[in-house]
Amino acid sequence: MGNTLIRDAIIVTMNDQWDVIRGDVRITDDRIVGLGSPDGEDGFVPDEIIEAKGSIVLPGFVQTHIHLCQTLFRGRADDMELMDWLRTRIWPLEAAHDEQSVYISALLGIGELIQSGTTTLLDMETVHHTDAAFRAMAESGIRAISGKVMMDRSGDDIPPALQERTAKSIEDSVALLERWHGYDGGRLQYAFCPRFVVSCTEDLLIAVRDLADRHQVLVHTHASENRGEIELVERETGKRNVVYLDHIGLASPRLVLAHSIWLDDEERDIIRRKGVKVTHCPGSNLKLASGIAGVPGLLASGVPVGLGADGAPCNNNLDMFQEMRLTAMIHKVQHGPTAMDARTVLRMATMGGAEVLGMERQIGSVEVGKKADLIMLDLHKFHAYPSYDADIYSRVVYAAGRGDVDTVLIDGRIVMRSRIVRTIDEAAVLRESDSAIGRLLGRMA
Amino acid sequence: MGNTLIRDAIIVTMNDQWDVIRGDVRITDDRIVGLGSPDGEDGFVPDEIIEAKGSIVLPGFVQTHIHLCQTLFRGRADDMELMDWLRTRIWPLEAAHDEQSVYISALLGIGELIQSGTTTLLDMETVHHTDAAFRAMAESGIRAISGKVMMDRSGDDIPPALQERTAKSIEDSVALLERWHGYDGGRLQYAFCPRFVVSCTEDLLIAVRDLADRHQVLVHTHASENRGEIELVERETGKRNVVYLDHIGLASPRLVLAHSIWLDDEERDIIRRKGVKVTHCPGSNLKLASGIAGVPGLLASGVPVGLGADGAPCNNNLDMFQEMRLTAMIHKVQHGPTAMDARTVLRMATMGGAEVLGMERQIGSVEVGKKADLIMLDLHKFHAYPSYDADIYSRVVYAAGRGDVDTVLIDGRIVMRSRIVRTIDEAAVLRESDSAIGRLLGRMA
Repeated sequence: MGNTLIRDAIIVTMNDQWDVIRGDVRITDDRIVGLGSPDGEDGFVPDEIIEAKGSIVLPGFVQTHIHLCQTLFRGRADDMELMDWLRTRIWPLEAAHDEQSVYISALLGIGELIQSGTTTLLDMETVHHTDAAFRAMAESGIRAISGKVMMDRSGDDIPPALQERTAKSIEDSVALLERWHGYDGGRLQYAFCPRFVVSCTEDLLIAVRDLADRHQVLVHTHASENRGEIELVERETGKRNVVYLDHIGLASPRLVLAHSIWLDDEERDIIRRKGVKVTHCPGSNLKLASGIAGVPGLLASGVPVGLGADGAPCNNNLDMFQEMRLTAMIHKVQHGPTAMDARTVLRMATMGGAEVLGMERQIGSVEVGKKADLIMLDLHKFHAYPSYDADIYSRVVYAAGRGDVDTVLIDGRIVMRSRIVRTIDEAAVLRESDSAIGRLLGRMA
Repeated sequence: MGNTLIRDAIIVTMNDQWDVIRGDVRITDDRIVGLGSPDGEDGFVPDEIIEAKGSIVLPGFVQTHIHLCQTLFRGRADDMELMDWLRTRIWPLEAAHDEQSVYISALLGIGELIQSGTTTLLDMETVHHTDAAFRAMAESGIRAISGKVMMDRSGDDIPPALQERTAKSIEDSVALLERWHGYDGGRLQYAFCPRFVVSCTEDLLIAVRDLADRHQVLVHTHASENRGEIELVERETGKRNVVYLDHIGLASPRLVLAHSIWLDDEERDIIRRKGVKVTHCPGSNLKLASGIAGVPGLLASGVPVGLGADGAPCNNNLDMFQEMRLTAMIHKVQHGPTAMDARTVLRMATMGGAEVLGMERQIGSVEVGKKADLIMLDLHKFHAYPSYDADIYSRVVYAAGRGDVDTVLIDGRIVMRSRIVRTIDEAAVLRESDSAIGRLLGRMA
């Protein structure tokens, strides 16, 4: 891809020193090779120049809990509680997916994610057709870790199409890992995705533990999202959710738990001691009435916490600006107005997410040697002014929004410019998303 | 202004029957004169045609608690509690205002409000320079009810420039009312704005009661926002906040209370019986850690509740889409996932606001005979798809955002088209907002 120069930006690096630099970003292929004044440009001949003219450059956002396969279900499961939402809407909808609908659902979601500044995501697909989602990720240029969902416990409320045998679930997962893990220089990776304890046999979870160890990949699951769910887990395993995960050896720095709302002290202690990672999903947690996670406490004890929009039917956007605003706002009533300030929240959306994925040396900040995953914001708008002597973290977290993202680079590639996503045909995907959900609802009926 | 035709829209009327109509909107001067199929167009010759091509037309949003004079302070008072926020930041900043800075602050706020679909607001200015704010409202084309703030109780923590004598506060308010109430066929109106009980003498509040009765205008104040505030009120008056307002005869259908978070049963009963109106400000209430108002209960007992973004320094946007999303989300954790569904929330943002202002016969819905205050949304975007068989209230409340507002009409006048505000020079206002806040901070220092 050669050399790209972003000229005269305000670079919010999100490095450990919180440096904000006025100057240039120099990119060679997929890496940041220079930052700051043009003096350092010796021998750097740009193939492409992006004139920032004082726009803000940030590391791309890292979302650590997304279900791309559900984007097509946006608006079809509002104002419901989690277990109802799963049993009467999401599972039947997922069961009716085919290759084409999974593919379009992923492209629709990735289009939204790129347009709102997300450059890396940890995703959980459905039981089948996960190759189609990986194809969409491959083509769109997004950085992603994904995997098929695993759910091998039968239950009356689970549609037959989502019921799988333990061996087959493992076999399919490993086949996907072999096909996609490391794709495009590591831009795509695989994660094992047991849905949640309630839907998995102990045999499956133990196999996942060993496979994740062997392949050194993440395990991405839900835990302690909802009081009904944790009661089910306690009834069936005799243990609290995270205690059970630890009991079978899954608690490790490779385990990423979405939600983690209803933790007790012992569970918080396991998470901290074992280096488990957590994803906070405030939009989803509020909309499903799940509760408000104890994020300030987790952060204070050193647990890496990332942010995620979850799926479109429980949010209904995949927009990191929304999740940042909510994160900055909803904890203050309980923890006081100084809790979760803008800087802390922006860190969660960038470096925090990178830490959750174990990718803090590759992404999450704008630093020489890191991947060129960058977004450029145009804040020359009524809603983000005045700019005079303004706190830049406040402007980004409290005032900016998805519409302010002008340009997005992932792996050094310009995937969006002037709000036009270059890697996805928006008009075609919108049209096809309508026909795909129409056909899917037909299969369901 | 003649005849305007909006052709082929999906009209979300927000009328009592929740009608959604595919068809045309016919406007003559400031009024809606026809809706629906072209068959009814006999004799209607449009001077201007807006091709909606299936875009969604909604009544413009009505925000019932805004401080335009604070827009210039965006980002200068983050992560603080109410009384601190007032004493150490907002009051000193307001005290340093001059004519020009109040004018620019109002234009900046109105620009943001129009761009995010708000067509009517109830505003509270600062002690001085309120003519400048009315000038900005007059020029911008917004529909507004506003007034100077009244605060005649001295206190060590109130800057001298904001301390006023009772008689002068009343005299200035009445002079503003005489100059601006009824301007441009009633597009601008006056409201008396005692800041809150803590900052007003009983003499002032009683005078306001009589003046509001005589002139038949609203009284716009804050009440029960914060626990520190209600303790102060109880210490000084011996009564709960709303009980005190009722005791001096202010509780009436012309009283609009911002926030109303910490109400007890007696206060809720007064509000209901006396027809008092309430504004819910979820963004401000979360950010200032004030609390979460009991909105589902107020609505269930028939109290009109509108939505407001409050001021830029406590939000930090003036965006009704943000307030709608928050309103739909934050009450579910306490009241269950079916509480505050999308339709209920969109009604609060439109007809609910109109009822709070006593303007339900003029604005708040798209109906023949009402004022042509309309917004058109372009939801042909990744984040709002699929559109197939989609619930339109869900799309607007949970998926859409300020960037989707394409066109805004107020009083029949096209004030925004293709996201360009026609009545305000955006580039000039942004530039002047920076110099105005720079000079203001200089005066403060």
